[in-house]
Amino acid sequence: MSKKAGEVRSGQVKISDAFWSQMQEKVIDVVIPFQEKVLNDEVPGVAKSHAIENFRIAAGLSQGEFYGMVFQDSDMAKWLEGVAYSLTVKPDSALEARADDIIEIIEKAQQPDGYLDTYFIVKEPERRWQNLHECHELYCAGHMMEAGAAYYEATGKDRLLRVVERLADHIISLFGPEGEKSHGIPGHQEVEIGLMKLYHVTGKEKYRDMARHFLEERGKNPDYFYEEKMKRGWQHWGQYSTDKLDVTYNQAHETVYEQKEAVGHAVRALYMYTAMADLAGADGDEKLYQACRTLWENVVNKKMYITGALGGNPEGESFSSNYELPNDMAYAETCASIAMVFFAHRMLEMEMDGCYADIMEKELYNSTISGMQLDGKKYFYVNPLECEPGVSGKLFGYRHSLPMRPGWYACACCPPNLVRLITSLGKYCWSENDSAIYSHLMIGQKAELEKAQVIVDTSYPWEGKADYTIMPKTEEEFTLAIHIPGYVDFEREENCLRVNGEILDAGKLLKKGYVYITRKWTVGDKVSLRFPLEVRRAYANQHVRENAGCVALLRGPMVYCFEGVDNGEMIQSLRIPKDLKAIPFTCEEGVLKGNVLLSIEGYRMVGSDELYSEKPPVKEKAKLTAVPYYTWANRGENQMRVWMQEE
Amino acid sequence: MSKKAGEVRSGQVKISDAFWSQMQEKVIDVVIPFQEKVLNDEVPGVAKSHAIENFRIAAGLSQGEFYGMVFQDSDMAKWLEGVAYSLTVKPDSALEARADDIIEIIEKAQQPDGYLDTYFIVKEPERRWQNLHECHELYCAGHMMEAGAAYYEATGKDRLLRVVERLADHIISLFGPEGEKSHGIPGHQEVEIGLMKLYHVTGKEKYRDMARHFLEERGKNPDYFYEEKMKRGWQHWGQYSTDKLDVTYNQAHETVYEQKEAVGHAVRALYMYTAMADLAGADGDEKLYQACRTLWENVVNKKMYITGALGGNPEGESFSSNYELPNDMAYAETCASIAMVFFAHRMLEMEMDGCYADIMEKELYNSTISGMQLDGKKYFYVNPLECEPGVSGKLFGYRHSLPMRPGWYACACCPPNLVRLITSLGKYCWSENDSAIYSHLMIGQKAELEKAQVIVDTSYPWEGKADYTIMPKTEEEFTLAIHIPGYVDFEREENCLRVNGEILDAGKLLKKGYVYITRKWTVGDKVSLRFPLEVRRAYANQHVRENAGCVALLRGPMVYCFEGVDNGEMIQSLRIPKDLKAIPFTCEEGVLKGNVLLSIEGYRMVGSDELYSEKPPVKEKAKLTAVPYYTWANRGENQMRVWMQEE
Repeated sequence: MSKKAGEVRSGQVKISDAFWSQMQEKVIDVVIPFQEKVLNDEVPGVAKSHAIENFRIAAGLSQGEFYGMVFQDSDMAKWLEGVAYSLTVKPDSALEARADDIIEIIEKAQQPDGYLDTYFIVKEPERRWQNLHECHELYCAGHMMEAGAAYYEATGKDRLLRVVERLADHIISLFGPEGEKSHGIPGHQEVEIGLMKLYHVTGKEKYRDMARHFLEERGKNPDYFYEEKMKRGWQHWGQYSTDKLDVTYNQAHETVYEQKEAVGHAVRALYMYTAMADLAGADGDEKLYQACRTLWENVVNKKMYITGALGGNPEGESFSSNYELPNDMAYAETCASIAMVFFAHRMLEMEMDGCYADIMEKELYNSTISGMQLDGKKYFYVNPLECEPGVSGKLFGYRHSLPMRPGWYACACCPPNLVRLITSLGKYCWSENDSAIYSHLMIGQKAELEKAQVIVDTSYPWEGKADYTIMPKTEEEFTLAIHIPGYVDFEREENCLRVNGEILDAGKLLKKGYVYITRKWTVGDKVSLRFPLEVRRAYANQHVRENAGCVALLRGPMVYCFEGVDNGEMIQSLRIPKDLKAIPFTCEEGVLKGNVLLSIEGYRMVGSDELYSEKPPVKEKAKLTAVPYYTWANRGENQMRVWMQEE
Repeated sequence: MSKKAGEVRSGQVKISDAFWSQMQEKVIDVVIPFQEKVLNDEVPGVAKSHAIENFRIAAGLSQGEFYGMVFQDSDMAKWLEGVAYSLTVKPDSALEARADDIIEIIEKAQQPDGYLDTYFIVKEPERRWQNLHECHELYCAGHMMEAGAAYYEATGKDRLLRVVERLADHIISLFGPEGEKSHGIPGHQEVEIGLMKLYHVTGKEKYRDMARHFLEERGKNPDYFYEEKMKRGWQHWGQYSTDKLDVTYNQAHETVYEQKEAVGHAVRALYMYTAMADLAGADGDEKLYQACRTLWENVVNKKMYITGALGGNPEGESFSSNYELPNDMAYAETCASIAMVFFAHRMLEMEMDGCYADIMEKELYNSTISGMQLDGKKYFYVNPLECEPGVSGKLFGYRHSLPMRPGWYACACCPPNLVRLITSLGKYCWSENDSAIYSHLMIGQKAELEKAQVIVDTSYPWEGKADYTIMPKTEEEFTLAIHIPGYVDFEREENCLRVNGEILDAGKLLKKGYVYITRKWTVGDKVSLRFPLEVRRAYANQHVRENAGCVALLRGPMVYCFEGVDNGEMIQSLRIPKDLKAIPFTCEEGVLKGNVLLSIEGYRMVGSDELYSEKPPVKEKAKLTAVPYYTWANRGENQMRVWMQEE
């Protein structure tokens, strides 16, 4: 484990990229305003939010009852966090003014002791902190902390930061290892991330220590939630009741050091792993790092879909058992993939290893953005790898897995999570430490780092081509380390790395997925990467029974899928030849315009009309088309498959 | 549609067959005595039955409360029906005496008006017939009628028959098309079958008419159950409440003439189709026959597993949508396959078409008997086509699908259903009409038909070899028609048909799956069939996404499967070569002794240890073993698959 590299803030990076700029525009122009209207109850036909009104009531500015989920406040927090990042991408003084107004209301809603949760302030003031299992006060607090930190970093305004510091201090006054304090832990992890962010922004160690407390307390007493339930006389409140006390569901069955397998609710798990990795990096804690590494390996080597999706079990939106990765029944929540970006990013900060950047890239180009319709107006929570209209979204086992993105949800977690991910994309692009700057992602941009300004010009993910122009701010030698995607092989002569036109021996400079170029940089020095993108085939481990006989197609970071609209009926009858010839081409029209699709000379198996026949089906040539996975279900309801039978 | 052929009673046939005699022995020696003990509450560790005691209490012979399911009486009826058939296979005067005693109690429990249902007699006498949807009074009555008819046929004793006639008459007094009568229909179809059996045994048309009434009333008013629920003030009773009023679930959404697709609870549907076919045959009702045929075709061509299993949707133990046949999530209830034998048998009586006999055979050799452990002691309700220990029986979507047969169930439907099927096997072997005797199944036996005694000597299903020795009872010419399994092709010269050693042109004699041999028969005339059994490959229709790229192996009527115990880990990584070489061999030891297994030179795909790899897996030669499907899960918990990837 190397020394933790310095985090780069999203505000240091201005994305200017054919692929990502339009994503940022969509979330800024469509999702943020839409959610703002939802929060203000201004969208007819969408489940009432009441989130802002709840704060107004809690602040004494309005009369009425609390309405919504017990964790409704978190919608407010996530929106504010997204707004903060969006202001760094595209300043908008009117939006900022409205956000400031909301922050003022939030501040007024905060109680004198620092408490801040509108459900309990308005509805059940006597029941604060008594149902950590189901009522998510700590979860809401964590999101509010993230918002406060982000808003401060984006705008320099510390009003919300001060609110959440008071909230964190209040939490510290109640929870902790000391005998007289509560040994409670959050039912849904998140406050640990929020506390770590407060620590990073303020430098105050008490927040880091509190994050450590919550992480280390977890699983020490696996009966905590049971005891809590007994204490409150088996009552529940907050419109939300958990029948089962399955402590693996929220990762409270063992201490974080004992947990070797990713289990339970995928988002809760991955938020916890993210905080663990953040803390391990901040403290140089080798033991905690090893715990993270064990869980990382289990997730990546046994529980992840090829799209990066996570959660094979729809029951409890959970990880399934090892290698149990049903394509059509996948839970594969957008938020889980977003959380995996957070986890990978924190792991990367501890150890500059391309394996983390590869996963971050896989998530960013596949199962995170598949959550959003191409026009930004509708969202998937569930991102399956196979869809069958008439079954998906309808039949037992598949009801969660919709064939088309619906609109807003009453439990609005994924869309605002996508907003904050995409608007803060800059921070995932770089790390910087005393001797080096590390480029993790090939995204067109201008980055203001401490040692240099770097302009990245790229046509990634559609072409393997990136030019880094360096404007050093120091005369001293430093290293530019660039992550090379794991699929690039510098043994192949068409793949090459140049500095100012001169070819370097990239293979020699490559260490754990990064090429390291150390020199005294001159203004305008140019590092160029070229690696023509091939269509690649991927095979699942033989343990994965679901994918027996199948192949998936990849190109660059993109996973491809086959849809009915391009390939006709019964896409399960199509076959990808073992001597694959796939021709990439740029889609010139329609909603997929600009995406690189694949044209494949494949087969269609034509069999008997009987249900079962002793005549083997015969193969007929068929021209097949594959599209990037993230674009699926944008052209009407139809079949979709990522894994295709090979022939 | 030809004239209905005469039904042959099970008592006319003495099975003497290497395969089936031991099955009959098991159900007679193991299942019937075990169930008798259960009904008497003499088996510790098994859910209390209380079924006999309920009748004793209802009869005033004992004090106490009703206990058990609201349809607990049906367990009693099914046991008596099984006992009746068993007495024709293996007379047992002590057993018969005990059955007589129980019948006496049942008679005493019957109310003066003919009513007979211990739940309502003991517990809710005021609530008779008010919750047909959930309380299954008519279902219990139907089973009791079947028992009464069978017991009379087996023993000549009519005490139970008179009881059920009084019960039927009571039902006729309450239900019917007349304005003043109830237009109620049963929530779970079965009484229609019972009434038809009463009609066949007694010749009384009122029972047939009542069966017709229940069948034709169904779906006329799709709101019937809803209105019934309103009438009883949305209360439920009988320990049993149905949340949803999904009338497709019990096939009450349309009239039987309008129903074109098999939907809802598979057993209820198939019991209804059975009664429809029985009635259509009895009345020569072409319209009703066409309705049966439409449903038959939908089931057989779009909703049946290759093993004959039925019910692709575990929710509601139901048929799924067309071609939606998940192997691991299958409901595939033993009772549904048994019901399919009933349905096929009734269709066959109307039309001597081998397509019905083929399905009857498929069910008998595969997904009915797979419900019973080889020692007769444990039972599957669910007969999946793929099993994955750690997933099957454990995870969401698969909890119903156990990897090993458990013991008795509180809802004891499948084991006694298997008892009555296997003990009455004789009746499925033959039909007889004025001019011909029809052999449907190749089972070793001595049959006492009206025109002849026939001795069948066969080594089926392990060899395609059967000798029919005819002892005519008439000097007139008549036809012996023998069903030739659909997979036998007389174009192949090794397949042949001989009469007294002389080869006949079987192809010419073959009509709709039967060879017709018409002659004046002499005592000792011998008809010999020889068709060496080949291992056959079957492919699913391309619509079945679950079986893409897969092949299933068959030999004779047997469907084969692959188990972990024979084939090692990860059977999904095994491949069946397209140039299949499969060598059948007889298992010489262990629990499978006597079964023909298949030895296959196949492959095992060996891939990377990574979860996803760009290296294609390589194939290694592997010796594979397949076993008859019905024998699976008899050698410990392990993986199982019917459909295997072909390579």
